[in-house]
Amino acid sequence: MQAVTAKRVTKRVSAKRRALVRGEPIVRGILAAALEELASAGYRALRIEDVATRAGVNKTTVYRRWPTKEDLVRAALLSVTDEKIVPPNTGSIREDLIALGRAIVEIQTSPVGQSLFHVFLAEGPDSELMAIARSLRAVQESGLRAIVEGAVARGELAPSDDPMLPFELLAAYLKHKMIADRAGVDEAQLARVVDLILLGALSPARRKQI
Amino acid sequence: MQAVTAKRVTKRVSAKRRALVRGEPIVRGILAAALEELASAGYRALRIEDVATRAGVNKTTVYRRWPTKEDLVRAALLSVTDEKIVPPNTGSIREDLIALGRAIVEIQTSPVGQSLFHVFLAEGPDSELMAIARSLRAVQESGLRAIVEGAVARGELAPSDDPMLPFELLAAYLKHKMIADRAGVDEAQLARVVDLILLGALSPARRKQI
Repeated sequence: MQAVTAKRVTKRVSAKRRALVRGEPIVRGILAAALEELASAGYRALRIEDVATRAGVNKTTVYRRWPTKEDLVRAALLSVTDEKIVPPNTGSIREDLIALGRAIVEIQTSPVGQSLFHVFLAEGPDSELMAIARSLRAVQESGLRAIVEGAVARGELAPSDDPMLPFELLAAYLKHKMIADRAGVDEAQLARVVDLILLGALSPARRKQI
Repeated sequence: MQAVTAKRVTKRVSAKRRALVRGEPIVRGILAAALEELASAGYRALRIEDVATRAGVNKTTVYRRWPTKEDLVRAALLSVTDEKIVPPNTGSIREDLIALGRAIVEIQTSPVGQSLFHVFLAEGPDSELMAIARSLRAVQESGLRAIVEGAVARGELAPSDDPMLPFELLAAYLKHKMIADRAGVDEAQLARVVDLILLGALSPARRKQI
């Protein structure tokens, strides 16, 4: 391990970043390059030309699919979040919460995820980048909503005025733990949090009195 | 309301900031001034002389009680968080969680709380200010731990490998809602979150099968 050269380390990181992105090879290459450019240059300074160079394609190849920087960045962020951040809808709300939690931890601890976090902070809450992120969250929410509705319909979750709350609690806890506390979250801790969200903290005896 | 002058608005904000701080009048004045200086100048640029001027006292009055900037800032932050962030230990874990939640919302939405949040972000995770904040959290945690232990002892909370988790979930959710989502949290929402943390999201029928 100690003999690994700097170049090989860079290659490995790049492979890891690319592994986050799905789709056809050429699309995957461009979107991964866009994420890398976004992570290193930020949103305002990002140029489609630089993305093309990094991906080793002609810039018209990029423009043909994504006419604007906003389109390209939206597609790049969606390629990371779309598949991972909407759980698989396994028919078990516990499994789905754990899958969502794993995806959040994976993205947040990946090199590209960490760089992107700082880019988001630097761009600020009123930036175009934040607006893109918010519109992606709306996509994610509709997927999560379908999962909650399924779980309520099959009698697994209690009906609620705020059906997204279990997902929100989980996401908030994981992000807070990793960002503010700078602590990792392992599988055991993830299961503990999911079970608290599903079963509650009250003792069974006290629960019966309610 | 529209006739209120800029000066009177400033005065009101100042009064609100001062109301967050407890203790003897002169101590309260100095600590409130320290918070205001911290919120406007940041930690690195903060000078004890400027705090004294703002509080209308001689700088030796400040140095006598708090020999260093670190001591002063620690005391100022503690004056906001100490009383509010450790719940009253009412004997009801639900009441204590709601009291903690209210305190977090109040601090986070206060003018001084909002400015301090940006100061903390700007100083960065490895700053002396963050180290002070972390040591204050240790103080808070010992207070919360006593509350949890009491609730477990009287059979209210189930024993847990991670007894602080209910408090952490609540704090993470509220901060995430107010900071990332830039949304307020009212009393009804606070009660909903606390009840989810205590009772869980599963339907009662499904719970019995576990």
